Amino acid sequence: MSQYWSAVVRGLTPYVPGEQPKIDKLIKLNTNENPYPPSPHVLQAIRAELGEDAARLRLYPDPNADVLKACIARLHGLNANQVFVGNGSDEVLALVFQALLKHDAPTCFPDVTYSFYPVYCGLYEINFRTVPLTEDFSIRPEDYTAPCGGIIIANPNAPTAKALSLGEVERLTAAHPECAVVVDEAYIEFGGEPAIPLIDAYPNLLIVRTLSKSHALAGARVGYALGNAALIEGLERVKNSFNSYPLDRLAQIGAIAALQDTAYFEQTRRAIIKSREKLVADLAALGLEVLPSAANFVFARHPQRDGAELAQQLRERAILVRHFKLPRIDQFLRISIGTDAECAALVSAFREILA
Amino acid sequence: MSQYWSAVVRGLTPYVPGEQPKIDKLIKLNTNENPYPPSPHVLQAIRAELGEDAARLRLYPDPNADVLKACIARLHGLNANQVFVGNGSDEVLALVFQALLKHDAPTCFPDVTYSFYPVYCGLYEINFRTVPLTEDFSIRPEDYTAPCGGIIIANPNAPTAKALSLGEVERLTAAHPECAVVVDEAYIEFGGEPAIPLIDAYPNLLIVRTLSKSHALAGARVGYALGNAALIEGLERVKNSFNSYPLDRLAQIGAIAALQDTAYFEQTRRAIIKSREKLVADLAALGLEVLPSAANFVFARHPQRDGAELAQQLRERAILVRHFKLPRIDQFLRISIGTDAECAALVSAFREILA
Repeated sequence: MSQYWSAVVRGLTPYVPGEQPKIDKLIKLNTNENPYPPSPHVLQAIRAELGEDAARLRLYPDPNADVLKACIARLHGLNANQVFVGNGSDEVLALVFQALLKHDAPTCFPDVTYSFYPVYCGLYEINFRTVPLTEDFSIRPEDYTAPCGGIIIANPNAPTAKALSLGEVERLTAAHPECAVVVDEAYIEFGGEPAIPLIDAYPNLLIVRTLSKSHALAGARVGYALGNAALIEGLERVKNSFNSYPLDRLAQIGAIAALQDTAYFEQTRRAIIKSREKLVADLAALGLEVLPSAANFVFARHPQRDGAELAQQLRERAILVRHFKLPRIDQFLRISIGTDAECAALVSAFREILA
Repeated sequence: MSQYWSAVVRGLTPYVPGEQPKIDKLIKLNTNENPYPPSPHVLQAIRAELGEDAARLRLYPDPNADVLKACIARLHGLNANQVFVGNGSDEVLALVFQALLKHDAPTCFPDVTYSFYPVYCGLYEINFRTVPLTEDFSIRPEDYTAPCGGIIIANPNAPTAKALSLGEVERLTAAHPECAVVVDEAYIEFGGEPAIPLIDAYPNLLIVRTLSKSHALAGARVGYALGNAALIEGLERVKNSFNSYPLDRLAQIGAIAALQDTAYFEQTRRAIIKSREKLVADLAALGLEVLPSAANFVFARHPQRDGAELAQQLRERAILVRHFKLPRIDQFLRISIGTDAECAALVSAFREILA
């Protein structure tokens, strides 16, 4: 605590990201990274941008990232003014909370969801209300009845991995024309139904995406948002009052190359989904309860073994998974889908621990 | 305007950065970029991080950028907990305004300075008061008499290029133990006196730096802050409530390589200072009034020719400089120091225009 801190700093409880260990040789299934490298086109594009002497790095990047936005727009059949880009979806989400979710009425989100949401509310002094998931950890649109200042859900939800159908997302969006409805689709490519077809009909719908998981670019920090041009303009106004150039040259170039290589994206996406289906079956065979997953991770618990203890026992075997000391989910483990070899090592470790 | 915008968005006047033209063959002296490429070590380090398949990009970067912080700390003889890093000094400054400059009493800064400062105040709803520069465009510490919620100055100041002495910075800092005094040293390496020696004596002093100009890394987006550990902790709390990973892998690696190559830094720094001295003499010989510059740009006006018109006439000759339509300085041009060839082309163009 310091006398120089502003009032809001004193009250903050910052988000704690999953561990990024500095030692190798760990099986790292704790932060939902993609087990495969990014498209080979990413490497080529960054090398080309660097050239012989990296001279372009002396120049500011395009502050508006026009080429990247055009690429995203084309990919999704939208106009460039329906696309916003930022330094990872975490930055995009932060600006979304500040620009679109801060109103007199509370912003609503599930009691179990991405734990950064209440942190953003703390940072921007946003009034919020959590809406409990059902007993089986589902989001039920009908539970969002009261008037809201804004709504944000993750689809698939984190850390449960459960997805809403497009119909459910539409019901939620249609029921709240009075506020922005934000759908955080960080994991949508692994089995959920994208809400993009709803954008033209619903001026209150904003979709947030990231290249971290789907395109194996967590290390490059690129996220984006899609929605009505007026929502996007609100985000641009905040972004341009915060940092003109949040995306560096190599991130912009790398993201474009990754997005354009749709064949590689499909191939790795399918491989991850296939690995997930096998992992779910293997874990179930060992007696774990696994929530139905539409993401690149699973959320699982053992009926008799303590979640924190299991995480620790895996750690002793050099396998990192994520455990949240939070109400309702403290018996679960969130396990990222690794390569088949990593999944097999995880299953072996579980077999040993549960023996 | 949209009903979904938060109240603060409605009132924003975003910052407008200098133009980043998408055509080549322009002489670009409008955004104070370094005319030289970054250290060759930057290219090597990024290539090594990319490896054969860019596989590391699939992994999140170190959220705390520990290696980069240690490198900066070592360079300046500080501890790592006296160092904060961010996505360019613009992001660092934004977090500084939110974390340290938002109090009941107004934050004070010069009437002529980096025009992003009032924008940050708008974004975070910070009460501010501007303090006029003297007639000769100097910051006079004695003019900051009233109690403040915070003070921020740029040293050298932008866009005037004029520097305060270390003694003047110390007088200002010592006179305001009640608030954070932030010194934006974006241009300090080109002739100013760094305030780093004051850090241990003044717990209210925070220094903000960027690698954009000094280390030719505008395209990589790396800035940092130096100060008392309690000030740094305030910034970390806000950063970790905003975006855990603002610096991507390649930016962290590239910044470390650039900072460690002190010989290259010295060589390019001296070359830019030498070019500046010649440019100042050449412009003076053509009848322009040039403010004494301690930066990698000069601020100059012609006693008879209109500033906006001169900028336009240079533009017609494919030379971009920055002109601000702002009170007191609308007759000036801010001209970045280019290579000697670029400076010579500028001088020739002026000679033609003024003939």
